[in-house]
Amino acid sequence: MKLKLAKGTRDFSPEEKIARDEILVLLREVCEIYGFSPIETPIFERYETLAAKFTAGEESDAMKETFKLSDQGKRKLALRYDLTVPFSRYVAMNKDIKMPMKKYMEGEVFRDGPIKIGRYRQFTQFDPDVVGCKGMIADAEILALADAVFKKLDLKFYIELNNKKILEGVMADAGIKEKDWSSVIISIDKLKKIGSKGVSEELRNKDLSEKQIKKILDALNKESTNKKSLDKLKSLMKSEVGKEGLKEVEDILKYLKNFGVKSVVFEPSLARGLAYYTGPIFEAYVKDSKIRSSAAGGGRYDKMIGDFIGSKNEVPAVGISFGVEVLIEVMKEKNRLEKKIVSELYVIPIGVFDKSLKIVKELREKGVKTDLDLLNRGISKSMKYASSYKIPYVLFVGEDELKKGKFKLKNMQTGKEVMLSLDGVVKKIK
Amino acid sequence: MKLKLAKGTRDFSPEEKIARDEILVLLREVCEIYGFSPIETPIFERYETLAAKFTAGEESDAMKETFKLSDQGKRKLALRYDLTVPFSRYVAMNKDIKMPMKKYMEGEVFRDGPIKIGRYRQFTQFDPDVVGCKGMIADAEILALADAVFKKLDLKFYIELNNKKILEGVMADAGIKEKDWSSVIISIDKLKKIGSKGVSEELRNKDLSEKQIKKILDALNKESTNKKSLDKLKSLMKSEVGKEGLKEVEDILKYLKNFGVKSVVFEPSLARGLAYYTGPIFEAYVKDSKIRSSAAGGGRYDKMIGDFIGSKNEVPAVGISFGVEVLIEVMKEKNRLEKKIVSELYVIPIGVFDKSLKIVKELREKGVKTDLDLLNRGISKSMKYASSYKIPYVLFVGEDELKKGKFKLKNMQTGKEVMLSLDGVVKKIK
Repeated sequence: MKLKLAKGTRDFSPEEKIARDEILVLLREVCEIYGFSPIETPIFERYETLAAKFTAGEESDAMKETFKLSDQGKRKLALRYDLTVPFSRYVAMNKDIKMPMKKYMEGEVFRDGPIKIGRYRQFTQFDPDVVGCKGMIADAEILALADAVFKKLDLKFYIELNNKKILEGVMADAGIKEKDWSSVIISIDKLKKIGSKGVSEELRNKDLSEKQIKKILDALNKESTNKKSLDKLKSLMKSEVGKEGLKEVEDILKYLKNFGVKSVVFEPSLARGLAYYTGPIFEAYVKDSKIRSSAAGGGRYDKMIGDFIGSKNEVPAVGISFGVEVLIEVMKEKNRLEKKIVSELYVIPIGVFDKSLKIVKELREKGVKTDLDLLNRGISKSMKYASSYKIPYVLFVGEDELKKGKFKLKNMQTGKEVMLSLDGVVKKIK
Repeated sequence: MKLKLAKGTRDFSPEEKIARDEILVLLREVCEIYGFSPIETPIFERYETLAAKFTAGEESDAMKETFKLSDQGKRKLALRYDLTVPFSRYVAMNKDIKMPMKKYMEGEVFRDGPIKIGRYRQFTQFDPDVVGCKGMIADAEILALADAVFKKLDLKFYIELNNKKILEGVMADAGIKEKDWSSVIISIDKLKKIGSKGVSEELRNKDLSEKQIKKILDALNKESTNKKSLDKLKSLMKSEVGKEGLKEVEDILKYLKNFGVKSVVFEPSLARGLAYYTGPIFEAYVKDSKIRSSAAGGGRYDKMIGDFIGSKNEVPAVGISFGVEVLIEVMKEKNRLEKKIVSELYVIPIGVFDKSLKIVKELREKGVKTDLDLLNRGISKSMKYASSYKIPYVLFVGEDELKKGKFKLKNMQTGKEVMLSLDGVVKKIK
């Protein structure tokens, strides 16, 4: 039998896993500093739970790409497709949660879709959300959190902010019929990619008049500063919903100023997740990288949880989803992730294997990540082993060293050797 | 529609998730101190991969309890049943791994079996293993690691050690036919539970002679010290395989002495996983707890990886699996896990909501896990909120406080209030 992975899945070697864990630990740490607590839901859900969310036309692809299974009792189940639906179910089932709730959730999600480079059937999502706060401070918290994450990763980045209500206001003001909004907005979203000319062309093919096209593009083309873009839109906007959207963006930018966040750019042409977002939407990009995919994206979804539980009461919610896979690719591109193994020190016993264990024990107790030549192979093979795993230091332990309490520590990168007591070794490495 | 979890699965609230993470972080930390690096494999595997392992009769239950699924291309897949099979596949597929390899692997495993208290269809395993080392130092490393984990958890515990070869030697010396060994050993394993009398009764029913029963029980009844148990068995044992097993136990105990590990008890009646273990076997228990399940168990499986890849070459391996669910129950029982939320400080703005964000920002930058009254609800509701989530401190921020740069910090447990500068607040909390 030829051993293979299931299609679209990956193993992570220590090198890759250490890199992933570094990113995940950083995400967790920043979330916790921002007052977000972790929750966890199962890998699989009842099929009905996932289907309840995905009945609208736009989302039926999601159901096709959902892995289905059943248990021995013939109950229909499905692997989670994202973290949002399980989270909505969680909120709906735990009515005694004291609001607002700030949580983060991380884990594997599964999509039975076509495989491309960078596209897998199992991948990791990391989603902080604020539930139970209608005020824009919640959106500002999410954006400030994202800002902190990218700063801590030491990446150059920007976060685009828009509001679905602004797009709707511009549609209404231009006299576009509501049924055509989403089609028109899909074209507008391409503004950065294909420019005004390309978008005009698309909108012409969608039977918009020249006047309508001009009106839309005049409104949604970004100005040189957030303030100028906002002022222009405020002077043009007639729609009440549109005005509401502008006020929300203003509020967010005001809060962000107090938070000292400067990376957020108001981008009136940004459109995403219009089927479920209800207000602010945002998307983060890394600068100076070959990787063009967004590194995080999110928005406010005040209706989703209520709809989902079949309640008329809105449960306001806003969140962001970090693209863990994208972040890892970016960090790899910048050579920021390069540990091959966790060990900091490799002990090589010379003729005193048993006694060297005491030294290993002491180093470990003092917090040094220590491995030793388990096969007792001697110096040259051990050096090769340590070097192939990029273990930064090796320590030689012989009879004489044990007697004197001084050991030769070799820095594997510089080749430099020093004689040190055990405490000296610990100090050197830590 | 009534929302429910899939049968046998659980959500983890922040309180529970924080507790689980504490245990997992501790396990990771100890593994890394001992030179074990993390790897990860996918949640689902090709069905054939799991089936290849589980063809032997004894394991067919495992196939029945394996969740099966398929992708849109009709490929047969399965959720992983344990971490050992995916790990074996990983080793087999990565022939360039430099041996020995010390890895740990954690993750969810899935069993479509009956539900009981404490028994779920998705649960977490945590498995460190050493691959590529035939010497008993690898087994000693695994046991020393387990010892360190329980010590770090500050639990009273002991680890039972035996060797499959000893059991086989005793069987052979007592003239039991090889085909009856596993049945006899299953009875012997109950020695602690039902005593010599109970086991004798069972063995009588399995058609063993009184002489055979006496011989077996004389050999396998533990003495008062490891040395006495070993000496007795050494004087009785005729079987070569049995002698080999005794030598292996002696070696392990010698290494453990150098490692300063005192928690390992030689228990000649211990039997576990006899279908795949080939030498030392071990099982760890927590003392002074209502929870009787073992908290970790493992052994040496020199044949599994080779068999699995259809190779005649042994790939020596030894590992242990920590029962994450059991450890969590034990820690809960001892009230060691009681954080309800990550936040250390809750900021309550008094009439200066916007300006208070600067304070929040500064505290976060200084590493304090800070949340704030997002709903701007005022003092009494905010205090209730902080108290219901057991946030240890609240900070009041009003106009006057901002002017003076001194803030009232309230310890929510003692009720004590102090006026402090922001740096003072940070120092107090950290």
